[in-house]
Amino acid sequence: MKNSSSIQALFGAHLKKLRLQSGLSQEAFADKCGLDRTYVSGIERGVRNPTLEVISVLAAGLEIEISKLFEFS
Amino acid sequence: MKNSSSIQALFGAHLKKLRLQSGLSQEAFADKCGLDRTYVSGIERGVRNPTLEVISVLAAGLEIEISKLFEFS
Repeated sequence: MKNSSSIQALFGAHLKKLRLQSGLSQEAFADKCGLDRTYVSGIERGVRNPTLEVISVLAAGLEIEISKLFEFS
Repeated sequence: MKNSSSIQALFGAHLKKLRLQSGLSQEAFADKCGLDRTYVSGIERGVRNPTLEVISVLAAGLEIEISKLFEFS
């Protein structure tokens, strides 16, 4: 598994924070998105490089705009 | 080449708009990003599905926050 890059780590940490704020477990969130839980786990840990399509699915699963997934400092 | 999905088309059209606003040609922008011009063309036309890493590179090339790439209605 490749090392996490800066953007992957930032994105993953922010995604996890938003998911926890929404009250969803990783499994419930993955199910809602139609993604595998291990894949969502990898994104949150910053070791996966999700595509635009997947990023769109993640935002829909959290019922937020995609831009909100990138509002980290 | 696969059909453009809704999010790819939206993202690509918005990217093109922002690039034109920045005054960069597709070739100059691609060079600045270290990407192939034909790849950037495919993203703008909504037929490519860029990864998080590439999306980050595109934002850096335009000198904007990633969230701005998703501020389309």
